[in-house]
Amino acid sequence: MAAPTDSEVFTFPVNVRYMEVDVQGVVFNGWYLTYFDDAMTAFLNHRGLPYLEMMAAGYDVQLVRSEIDYRSGVRFGESIVVAVAPSRFGRTSFALDFQVRRDNGEATTNGRIVYVVVGLENGTVLGKREIPPLIRDALGDPRPLH
Amino acid sequence: MAAPTDSEVFTFPVNVRYMEVDVQGVVFNGWYLTYFDDAMTAFLNHRGLPYLEMMAAGYDVQLVRSEIDYRSGVRFGESIVVAVAPSRFGRTSFALDFQVRRDNGEATTNGRIVYVVVGLENGTVLGKREIPPLIRDALGDPRPLH
Amino acid sequence: MAAPTDSEVFTFPVNVRYMEVDVQGVVFNGWYLTYFDDAMTAFLNHRGLPYLEMMAAGYDVQLVRSEIDYRSGVRFGESIVVAVAPSRFGRTSFALDFQVRRDNGEATTNGRIVYVVVGLENGTVLGKREIPPLIRDALGDPRPLH
Amino acid sequence: MAAPTDSEVFTFPVNVRYMEVDVQGVVFNGWYLTYFDDAMTAFLNHRGLPYLEMMAAGYDVQLVRSEIDYRSGVRFGESIVVAVAPSRFGRTSFALDFQVRRDNGEATTNGRIVYVVVGLENGTVLGKREIPPLIRDALGDPRPLH
Repeated sequence: MAAPTDSEVFTFPVNVRYMEVDVQGVVFNGWYLTYFDDAMTAFLNHRGLPYLEMMAAGYDVQLVRSEIDYRSGVRFGESIVVAVAPSRFGRTSFALDFQVRRDNGEATTNGRIVYVVVGLENGTVLGKREIPPLIRDALGDPRPLH
Repeated sequence: MAAPTDSEVFTFPVNVRYMEVDVQGVVFNGWYLTYFDDAMTAFLNHRGLPYLEMMAAGYDVQLVRSEIDYRSGVRFGESIVVAVAPSRFGRTSFALDFQVRRDNGEATTNGRIVYVVVGLENGTVLGKREIPPLIRDALGDPRPLH
Repeated sequence: MAAPTDSEVFTFPVNVRYMEVDVQGVVFNGWYLTYFDDAMTAFLNHRGLPYLEMMAAGYDVQLVRSEIDYRSGVRFGESIVVAVAPSRFGRTSFALDFQVRRDNGEATTNGRIVYVVVGLENGTVLGKREIPPLIRDALGDPRPLH
Repeated sequence: MAAPTDSEVFTFPVNVRYMEVDVQGVVFNGWYLTYFDDAMTAFLNHRGLPYLEMMAAGYDVQLVRSEIDYRSGVRFGESIVVAVAPSRFGRTSFALDFQVRRDNGEATTNGRIVYVVVGLENGTVLGKREIPPLIRDALGDPRPLH
């Protein structure tokens, strides 16, 4: 697989909130999972699968594993985006890669999250499901970001 | 190294807040990093090194990497603790293991965070430092939790 | 009504988290509503009405209004409690007073929240309800804190 | 004072995050103060006074009081904005009005926050200050929103 050109990768702009910055002057580490969650929803939406539509179709996803590498801190007032791309597919699970980038393209934080697909009926989670075409097609081809 | 008996491992009780529970009815994944941060501070305090004292001594720690394995969700009203123990030591960095446990001892979530020690002067971070005896002694012997 | 002695007022200990402290070095203003929410749940529980039991009985409460007076900031590592007491009763609504206190008794923040009682059926909110004896008895007599 | 036309009022788009929605399916009440904080920063920026510039000029603001009226809940996926306008000026303090609005213009939540201006030197807060022209001019004329 050829490396994706940057123009092909979906990016989600993040508004760093004053309250997310801690005493060290940088975004508290836990907020990155919130940024990634937001970016994932926006990515699915951009790919034609709004989250609420996925749920209406009887599917939801749950986190199985998250990995984050923190390279440098982001400060209040900085302009950042989160790049999102699928990096691996299993039978019932898939991984998304995330990368926080500054305006100058510098990667400050890398993330990888493994999700499992579950069935959903009237708001009740029913157990693991094979990745349905609805989700598989929305995610697109794997293109690891790091 | 023999496996630690459970009575030897430090645990930190977590008060699951209503606002931390999401639409799926379980704690949102990002809050675990907050729980681990709190548990780390309590662990250091329990081992005789209050965080503010560490900073007054000219040291701070920064996250380099976090890994979380989500096994089952925690609901509002559940009683949980976070077990904390050091699992690996390098020259300037060390890892802590975290484990979220229910009252019945069931592990719901496993975490591992790698920290690097940095120098601190008048609130300014100065760069990596070898782990000083102050911190090394407080952390104690490695005893991986998972 | 005589002023309550302090020993009569319920207090809830709050663990100030590192991530709740902002660049100014004090707890970010938004977290007080989280502290009050937690303290309210603990207050009801202390008075014999666990929140989940109230919901199982077909009732929930919703915020109508919140007022907070910020007198001084709370820092990381400080030991605080939130005092809780009912301050006013209407037909379908009631107010709770909150007060954040330092170890030395100093009040740092005053809050008042007005709640309305709503009916609940299978997780669906049904509209306003008169305060039922279940809730009225749990709340106890009004004793404004500020 | 004539009521402002809506086109004159600054509005800040808010991205409602999945993790901000609680078990009741609506944004948890505490997040509104975060929305207002963000909206205030954006308002100042829009009016030519970036927050960091205000701090560099030796000023900061602190919350004295907040009032919020909750009229209806906001759900995940809803598109909302926060309108911001100054509503009152004192010697050292001023109030901003906030209003959360749906796409159809419906006001879901009203807020009013009173801030006091404080002096700032090398990151240290020095005490109350008269509102300087720098801030007074940026805020503009009072135009209460509710």
